Amino acid sequence: MVTHNAERGFHGDSHENATFAVEETPSSGTMTIENERYGDGEGGGGDSDDKSLSVEMLFKGKVVPSWREQLTIRAFVVSFVLGVLLTFIVMKLNLTTGIIPSLNVSAGLLGFFFVKSWAKFMEKSGMLKQPFTRQENTVIQTCVVATSGIAFSGGFGSYLFGMSSIVAGQSTESHAAQNTKDPRLPWIIGFLFAVSFLGLFSVLPLRKIMVIDYKLTYPSGTATAHLINSFHTPQGAKLAKQQVRTLGKFFSFSFLWGFFQWFFTGGDGCGFANFPTFGLEAYENRFYFDFSGTFVGVGMICPYLINVSVLVGAILSWGLMWPLIKNRKGDWYAADLSDSNLKGVQGYRVFLSIAMILGDGLYNFVKVLGLTIQGFIKQYKKMEVIPVTERDSPEKVSNSYDDEVRTKLFLKDGIPLWVSFVGYVAIAAVSIGVIPKIFHQMKWYYVLVIYIFAPVLAFCNAYGCGLTDWSLASTYGKLAIFAIGAWAGESHGGVLAGLAACGVMMNIVSTASDLMQDFKTGYMTLASPRSMFVSQVIGTAMGCIISPCVFWLFYKAFVDIGSPHSDYPAPNALVYRNMSVLGVEGFGSLPHHCLTLCYILFAGSIVINLIRDTVAKKWAKYIPLPMAMAIPFYLGPYFAIDMCVGSLILFIWGKLDKAKADAFGPPLASGLICGDGIWSLPSSILALAGVQPPICMKFLSRGTNARVDKFLSP
Amino acid sequence: MVTHNAERGFHGDSHENATFAVEETPSSGTMTIENERYGDGEGGGGDSDDKSLSVEMLFKGKVVPSWREQLTIRAFVVSFVLGVLLTFIVMKLNLTTGIIPSLNVSAGLLGFFFVKSWAKFMEKSGMLKQPFTRQENTVIQTCVVATSGIAFSGGFGSYLFGMSSIVAGQSTESHAAQNTKDPRLPWIIGFLFAVSFLGLFSVLPLRKIMVIDYKLTYPSGTATAHLINSFHTPQGAKLAKQQVRTLGKFFSFSFLWGFFQWFFTGGDGCGFANFPTFGLEAYENRFYFDFSGTFVGVGMICPYLINVSVLVGAILSWGLMWPLIKNRKGDWYAADLSDSNLKGVQGYRVFLSIAMILGDGLYNFVKVLGLTIQGFIKQYKKMEVIPVTERDSPEKVSNSYDDEVRTKLFLKDGIPLWVSFVGYVAIAAVSIGVIPKIFHQMKWYYVLVIYIFAPVLAFCNAYGCGLTDWSLASTYGKLAIFAIGAWAGESHGGVLAGLAACGVMMNIVSTASDLMQDFKTGYMTLASPRSMFVSQVIGTAMGCIISPCVFWLFYKAFVDIGSPHSDYPAPNALVYRNMSVLGVEGFGSLPHHCLTLCYILFAGSIVINLIRDTVAKKWAKYIPLPMAMAIPFYLGPYFAIDMCVGSLILFIWGKLDKAKADAFGPPLASGLICGDGIWSLPSSILALAGVQPPICMKFLSRGTNARVDKFLSP
Repeated sequence: MVTHNAERGFHGDSHENATFAVEETPSSGTMTIENERYGDGEGGGGDSDDKSLSVEMLFKGKVVPSWREQLTIRAFVVSFVLGVLLTFIVMKLNLTTGIIPSLNVSAGLLGFFFVKSWAKFMEKSGMLKQPFTRQENTVIQTCVVATSGIAFSGGFGSYLFGMSSIVAGQSTESHAAQNTKDPRLPWIIGFLFAVSFLGLFSVLPLRKIMVIDYKLTYPSGTATAHLINSFHTPQGAKLAKQQVRTLGKFFSFSFLWGFFQWFFTGGDGCGFANFPTFGLEAYENRFYFDFSGTFVGVGMICPYLINVSVLVGAILSWGLMWPLIKNRKGDWYAADLSDSNLKGVQGYRVFLSIAMILGDGLYNFVKVLGLTIQGFIKQYKKMEVIPVTERDSPEKVSNSYDDEVRTKLFLKDGIPLWVSFVGYVAIAAVSIGVIPKIFHQMKWYYVLVIYIFAPVLAFCNAYGCGLTDWSLASTYGKLAIFAIGAWAGESHGGVLAGLAACGVMMNIVSTASDLMQDFKTGYMTLASPRSMFVSQVIGTAMGCIISPCVFWLFYKAFVDIGSPHSDYPAPNALVYRNMSVLGVEGFGSLPHHCLTLCYILFAGSIVINLIRDTVAKKWAKYIPLPMAMAIPFYLGPYFAIDMCVGSLILFIWGKLDKAKADAFGPPLASGLICGDGIWSLPSSILALAGVQPPICMKFLSRGTNARVDKFLSP
Repeated sequence: MVTHNAERGFHGDSHENATFAVEETPSSGTMTIENERYGDGEGGGGDSDDKSLSVEMLFKGKVVPSWREQLTIRAFVVSFVLGVLLTFIVMKLNLTTGIIPSLNVSAGLLGFFFVKSWAKFMEKSGMLKQPFTRQENTVIQTCVVATSGIAFSGGFGSYLFGMSSIVAGQSTESHAAQNTKDPRLPWIIGFLFAVSFLGLFSVLPLRKIMVIDYKLTYPSGTATAHLINSFHTPQGAKLAKQQVRTLGKFFSFSFLWGFFQWFFTGGDGCGFANFPTFGLEAYENRFYFDFSGTFVGVGMICPYLINVSVLVGAILSWGLMWPLIKNRKGDWYAADLSDSNLKGVQGYRVFLSIAMILGDGLYNFVKVLGLTIQGFIKQYKKMEVIPVTERDSPEKVSNSYDDEVRTKLFLKDGIPLWVSFVGYVAIAAVSIGVIPKIFHQMKWYYVLVIYIFAPVLAFCNAYGCGLTDWSLASTYGKLAIFAIGAWAGESHGGVLAGLAACGVMMNIVSTASDLMQDFKTGYMTLASPRSMFVSQVIGTAMGCIISPCVFWLFYKAFVDIGSPHSDYPAPNALVYRNMSVLGVEGFGSLPHHCLTLCYILFAGSIVINLIRDTVAKKWAKYIPLPMAMAIPFYLGPYFAIDMCVGSLILFIWGKLDKAKADAFGPPLASGLICGDGIWSLPSSILALAGVQPPICMKFLSRGTNARVDKFLSP
């Protein structure tokens, strides 16, 4: 139970930091939708500058360990455990909806919990050699985020799985055979190792410029640093302990709930995941609450605006557009096509979704690129930060005590320039040799060209992310799809080349911005850049092994993975594949009027964004995000309903007790997500072992039930 | 939300009273099992005597209205509304399991809420003529309890419904045709009016002796008085308001949950009520959690011991005995008999249950009768109370201020002796004329004999109840079954005569002890005996109309009511009928070895009770109650599991926050019970209107599901 003491403790200095405030500010938040990473620390950004109290003053007496001491074995053991945990969760999310909320809070809390318990245990047995410092905590955080980041940028729910024959079978292209590559462990691991480290080296030399000279905010990195700092103050530790308890409680609940649900899923369409909460007709149109702990939790972490956007998109598509299009059956598309045929209504779902995503992506790419260039030019001229967008709070020019201490420590451990250069060239050379071996459609000169442009794009992304907290990794990936796909051409396996190029590009730009975020975190927690870099490298390496293995477990355990009606439809795999097909083959294969509708939604997506950016902020927060709206187009509204339930719970809780909801909402949500996510592990093991659930909870209409009863009665 | 202010308020003087403490003290508690009324105010009994603070001091300034002023129209309007509500709930409980918890807390809270709102509304519109006093509150309480009491003593779940052909069809007797009388509204109402008022007149003259001279505790009546008194102190009113809010919240929740469940019950064995929580095999043996708000609430109100007893009985019977007996199929009973045939395994269920109930009933009858006579003799000798059992706290001999005030007011409004006498004789005369008209098997001299003995038994019951808080009404009823049944004989419709005699007897003794409880409540709240009596008479009259109508609604709306596998099996109806059959026809119709087992359980029941009464109290509270153990014999463990879930919730809540659990547990439980109970009203109206639920939530084994899927696929 939460005592009042703790609540009071929580009102102290570390309030905003520890609560990890989730706001409904547009274009920020705590999630990754359709592979666009939205940051999660909006409320935390620039906080320390606004406060008159110095954070480093609080830590003044504490000795900062050397960078080697920061890299403890226990830290990497804990990171490994948490990395596996989070990889499971991210993988599940990849394969169900592609919506991935920020799991930084859970990673932070769990890391703190594990090492703290470890330290306590060791202390009791007199074996504690080194106390648990915030630098070590940062190392864990960095390593875990790097590990689970691969589960996202590895494309298991998007480009990589889009190469498989299962997804290709649902697509429309003509040369499917030469454009498929089914997942196998060895080539996936090889591919990931070949591409995941380049990003790190590409931006390594820029750390001082971005973090110290330009003072970029990196809201997520800043928020994480605040979280870690708060854990290591006495009152923060108390709150953290309570948050961990909340997380643990809901973790267990969610896990047990997943376990309980399992027993009733002995057949297709059985169990709570198919509960026709609003009746059977609504269920036919995928309007139902599916009792998923994960998405209720995701809804609690995501800003209200995203939840509402998803719901609006769901109602627009499944409540309005698809029923209307279905009325044209036999006219717009052949009447004998099944519901999941891409030439039929499924085609509208997939391509309209792609149109909206591309519209939103293009708009934001242009916008962020513009802001980046604009900001960069100004930086270059004045060598100091000025407010670039209205989202950045003005920063102080004079160096505070915090800045002094941090800058000193940040610059102490240098990494020579030649390391980055040699590292990049060496890895690029290996990569150029290896990748065409894995994908014979991907010529070595495609890879070379990507590697020439990549550092620039990686810098752009890291810089843009520092300004707006918005990593556009998947947008860069989509650029690569179209560019390389068109270059390779239809007859030379352009579809597969495009997808592979997407992977190469996404990994570079994604890890680049992640690393820079971590440098910022390290800067604010006095962790050495060296230990950050080593931790990131080790975490990435772990991710390159763990993620494929976890994916492999899912892939082997659940046979129908990737097919539209399974529990794991992997929606983005089909979306990515079809982007590539579009890029290579053009619009020929689309059903009637689909292209027209695509143009409308593409334009609509841009227009909505334009309106959002031009109207007053108080109105903008009521205008839905096109990217979020597009997700349910293909999947259906059920997870939108889950997410809105989560939102609603948090909203009511906030009304009743704002302070408590702020402090314990995120751990509660993390608990729900983690518990349900980690249930995937035993559930996939059960499936692999051939243990099937014993009962089917079935939902039949009264009429059908009467027939079934008659059939079953002897 | 509960504020801390209120909680503090609750720690004041009225703590024990307002919380209505539920304890696991043996042979007391807050429920009616198999028609033995256990009291519900054990913790409250004698409280005011232990406290140095005088309750009446708190109310010193307040004017006590005259007895006519206490009887307001608004009080009876509210009583009528609450009476209908509680009748629905009691009727539902009658027809599902026969376990009826004390609804005094809900009646008290809701009565307070309604009149307080009314008074506030009237005050605002300037039309309030009379403030809301605790005397008026007592009048409502009395009236409501009298009204809903008829739903229990009317035998709609026991003797009266046991006369119907549905129940007779499941029984084994040879002359079924002459021993059935199907329920019809006119004769039920007539019968109830003929028998329900005699009890009131039979003990009316004894009120002074019992309440003032003997100072009998009447724990339930005392607790109710404490509750009402606490409502009318400022801090008590505050707590009551919060309790009402809790009640309202869970009332709505439970009602909506019932509504939601309804949609999924479109067929036999569909919906949450048939959820195989522990798997299909456990479900076959009726081990499952059926998501019933009612029985979770009942479990929260009942003492832990009763819940555990029910569970022990359930495991013993459905987990052990019945499976073992089923193994003897073809040996002990014919293998081709259906599961619900009384010659088969059902016979063991019913008759073993009867054996245990009779053993427990006999033991307690002898015990309470012994205590009554013993106490009465001592009283008579010394004219003052001495501790009769260890359960009675020693009372003060000297009159406190409270006693003085209360005695003065209690004696102010007398009721002349001739009123009782004339009333009793007049009603008895009418009754002797009417009852044989209704049941031609019931000769007028049977009724006359009952009416000669009845006042003595009514006195015994009222006195015993005052000492032990235990009304043995149904035990007296069972005596009448055997006595009159045997007298009438097999060939003259003895079975029906026995059941009718049971009704006559039960109504008299039950209303007699109820009235005396109310006098005690009135004594402690300074309500006039006259207003108590009038209120009781009006409440009884309302009950005689309301209860049959509510029963009729159930009877017409749910077609298979009374059959073993329906939602409303009315288990006690079959038990009572078979007692009557046993009494008239002997043991001839029992299956093999059943009689031997019956003897064992009958003796076991007495032995368990003996052990309970001889061992130390700290051990006695771990020994289950045979009466409670017998209930699930026939019904199965599902409601025992519900009740234990309720217990568990309360137990954990108590561990976390004792004060809050004590204060808000009972209203929460009442809310759950009332919400689910009142859902019976719309649900039966829907059934009458022919609206059937649209969906069936079905539970199939994986194999069966595969067959069904094959059958359903085109």
